[in-house]
Amino acid sequence: MDVIAELRDIVGDAHVLTGADAAPFARDWTGAYEGEPLAAVRPGSTEEVAAVVKLAGRAGVPVVPVAGNTGLMGGTHAPGRIALSLERMNRIREVRAPSRLAVVEAGVVLSQLHEAVEAEDLVFPLTFGARGSARIGGVLGTNAGGSNVLRYGNTRALCLGLEVVLPSGEVMDLMTELVKDNSGYDLRDLFIGAEGTLGIITAAVVRLFPKPAAYATAMVSVPDLDAGLQLLNELQTATGGAVEAFEYMPKTYIDAHIAHDPKAKRPFDDEYEHNIMVEIGATAPRDAEVAADGTVPVQSYLEEVLAERIESGQVLDAMVARSEAQRREIWARREIAGELTVAGGPGVITDVSVPLDAVARFLDRADDAIAKADPAARSMVVSHLGDGNIHLTIWPSDHSEAAHDAMMELVEDIVADLGGSFSAEHGIGLGKQGSMRRRKDPAALAVMRQIKAALDPGGIMNPGKVLPA
Amino acid sequence: MDVIAELRDIVGDAHVLTGADAAPFARDWTGAYEGEPLAAVRPGSTEEVAAVVKLAGRAGVPVVPVAGNTGLMGGTHAPGRIALSLERMNRIREVRAPSRLAVVEAGVVLSQLHEAVEAEDLVFPLTFGARGSARIGGVLGTNAGGSNVLRYGNTRALCLGLEVVLPSGEVMDLMTELVKDNSGYDLRDLFIGAEGTLGIITAAVVRLFPKPAAYATAMVSVPDLDAGLQLLNELQTATGGAVEAFEYMPKTYIDAHIAHDPKAKRPFDDEYEHNIMVEIGATAPRDAEVAADGTVPVQSYLEEVLAERIESGQVLDAMVARSEAQRREIWARREIAGELTVAGGPGVITDVSVPLDAVARFLDRADDAIAKADPAARSMVVSHLGDGNIHLTIWPSDHSEAAHDAMMELVEDIVADLGGSFSAEHGIGLGKQGSMRRRKDPAALAVMRQIKAALDPGGIMNPGKVLPA
Repeated sequence: MDVIAELRDIVGDAHVLTGADAAPFARDWTGAYEGEPLAAVRPGSTEEVAAVVKLAGRAGVPVVPVAGNTGLMGGTHAPGRIALSLERMNRIREVRAPSRLAVVEAGVVLSQLHEAVEAEDLVFPLTFGARGSARIGGVLGTNAGGSNVLRYGNTRALCLGLEVVLPSGEVMDLMTELVKDNSGYDLRDLFIGAEGTLGIITAAVVRLFPKPAAYATAMVSVPDLDAGLQLLNELQTATGGAVEAFEYMPKTYIDAHIAHDPKAKRPFDDEYEHNIMVEIGATAPRDAEVAADGTVPVQSYLEEVLAERIESGQVLDAMVARSEAQRREIWARREIAGELTVAGGPGVITDVSVPLDAVARFLDRADDAIAKADPAARSMVVSHLGDGNIHLTIWPSDHSEAAHDAMMELVEDIVADLGGSFSAEHGIGLGKQGSMRRRKDPAALAVMRQIKAALDPGGIMNPGKVLPA
Repeated sequence: MDVIAELRDIVGDAHVLTGADAAPFARDWTGAYEGEPLAAVRPGSTEEVAAVVKLAGRAGVPVVPVAGNTGLMGGTHAPGRIALSLERMNRIREVRAPSRLAVVEAGVVLSQLHEAVEAEDLVFPLTFGARGSARIGGVLGTNAGGSNVLRYGNTRALCLGLEVVLPSGEVMDLMTELVKDNSGYDLRDLFIGAEGTLGIITAAVVRLFPKPAAYATAMVSVPDLDAGLQLLNELQTATGGAVEAFEYMPKTYIDAHIAHDPKAKRPFDDEYEHNIMVEIGATAPRDAEVAADGTVPVQSYLEEVLAERIESGQVLDAMVARSEAQRREIWARREIAGELTVAGGPGVITDVSVPLDAVARFLDRADDAIAKADPAARSMVVSHLGDGNIHLTIWPSDHSEAAHDAMMELVEDIVADLGGSFSAEHGIGLGKQGSMRRRKDPAALAVMRQIKAALDPGGIMNPGKVLPA
């Protein structure tokens, strides 16, 4: 029997897609990675995933897990392979409000989880622009970050338990809901962020948090990034670490937004170089309860701090959202980033992190180096400033692969010099293979290869991703 | 040349100890594990550690890393092996206050790090009774927990970067100071908690936090554990998660303390069944600054909450510390736990965790089962209640190994039934080998063995620990 026929036996004819039916799996959303899979298969259960993986092992056909397919690094590229879509495994098995956790399958859409727990006055705090399409399996597979890592940590910090189909087709049960569990090696964090190269995550226990009873959200312009970081520190100390987002949008970003969407508004009447979105989430009644005069304490507090800083020149302008609509508009400006990146055409998409106090130096040095290397290059920056995570996209005037590679190396040189990382939250996939080869500590890379070879000796789990050939 | 002579060549004669000189390495502090090492060797640098590991590989002699030797599970047991002591690598290389991080060598004593960063108004928040002897290498090797995990997370959550000597003798450089770093598999968290079975951690970058400007610390007695958890939830919501410790000490624990130290005081004049130590750390000026009447807002707040709950019967009695001396006395009562455990003689030391809402059920069921199995058994409980982590020590009337094993299995049955873990924060070492064999998911155990075999094919790194033979 051939592989396609066997796949049909496992999941049913309706769930094995080939040819035109498999088109959504033949291209990533950025358009950078194309290639038709042998078949796209949509298992409906962990057992079916296991059966597909066992078949793949027997047949020697690689398997590429696909969740929401919203990644930027080509991690789901599956030419001639089995694209294993988790979209049918989209059940939220349980939301346990008193224990502040949810048990979810890998195909659950991020925004679906957000909505389900909001009904219980809780949040699953991981969020980013693609939340309406991204699925938990991909979020876990890439250890996704986003705008709220500052307060709540990245995906690893939000996950308590995992269920994984191993390359052997065996199911590994790590579905604990415990905060403290020292029963052997930390396999959970090894499989999170492995992009399906060590196994396929099929379900998880995730942490939930009390939904802030009020938010204070503002756009702020500052004279320089140092003033921005001082503001962050003041807010963190005064709120006990309740700053949820601290997002940097320089003028180049605002300009790109306006060019992309003429209806979009600038944050201020004046055009400033350094704009920051701040959000504080308040859970305590004393901060969140509407006062007699209709004001909300946490918003009044933020207004006071900003007014004082305008007085002293450390803030140039500021606007605190006074309604959920205003708050949404501020967030929309930040969340359009992915769209702006793709709209600019094929570019050099970087996702770097540097120590917090080195962000300004990184940006200055990158600007200079890009201008020197290619005066006609365009670039755009948006940054999770509170995490030192910078998304710099460069569109070189020369569209050749060699020119793109040279630009990537130029950025990486600066990052390495500042003690940063060439991959902060997007993962490696195919797009960062060269960076892994050039930049990762050789001993660490060797250990990763040893682990990969030991767990997947047949090389069937998403080969060619994470680890350079 | 023999191994001892080669060791002397590497580290110098003064730092190779044998016979009586090696006595401190022949016995763990609980007295449960004895056995003379071939030699104890004290390298002074990462390079010397690497040279010792290479020699061990060539000679086929296993290496056991030893830091403070304060573990409870026999992880440093090294009969006939090379005990590699990290005590000379005790430099705090750097404290970078603005970036809130420190770079430390593996031999730094935990309390030494506490003191060094306190001078900068910062804390390294990991703490437990043995902090005056425990060293960073052991803390990392066991993914140590303690009383402040509730607020700050366990060792993994507090570590940004690692330096590791691999079984090959190569040095792996993961010394990043980044919060976001997705450059390949998460090796950091794999080596943390691996008890030296995959390599030897020689240095780390750890996170620091602002030192709370004021503490509110109290002893509270509650009618039952549900009332305790409700109190925890109220305090967490009102303070935005600033509860640093929530430690349960039942009457059996207080009694053991008084019996051990006649000068020790009971927390209250009346004897209560359920006593909890609470500590809130306030960083915000509005909570921490001394008011005109000499009171501290966060302490007044805690007093008010407790007074209301006494009124409603949800708290039976309470005492908020009014001085650092009173606060110290409360902490001392909790931190004597390790000493009380050892003073009771060889017992069945458990370190389990269960879901938060299952702690009371666990304690009830364990009490019943122990009494039924061995009516003359003694037991003592102390618990990091906010983490669901319970330390139940049982002294069976029958001192045989079989009787101890049976008692351990009895406890584990209840833990497994409640979805808990047989090891919360002490690790596996030798003491939990049976538990790993009986209780760990077989697929997970197989993956751990594959990783161990791939990284340490010669089996020289602390063999026989973590993974059962």
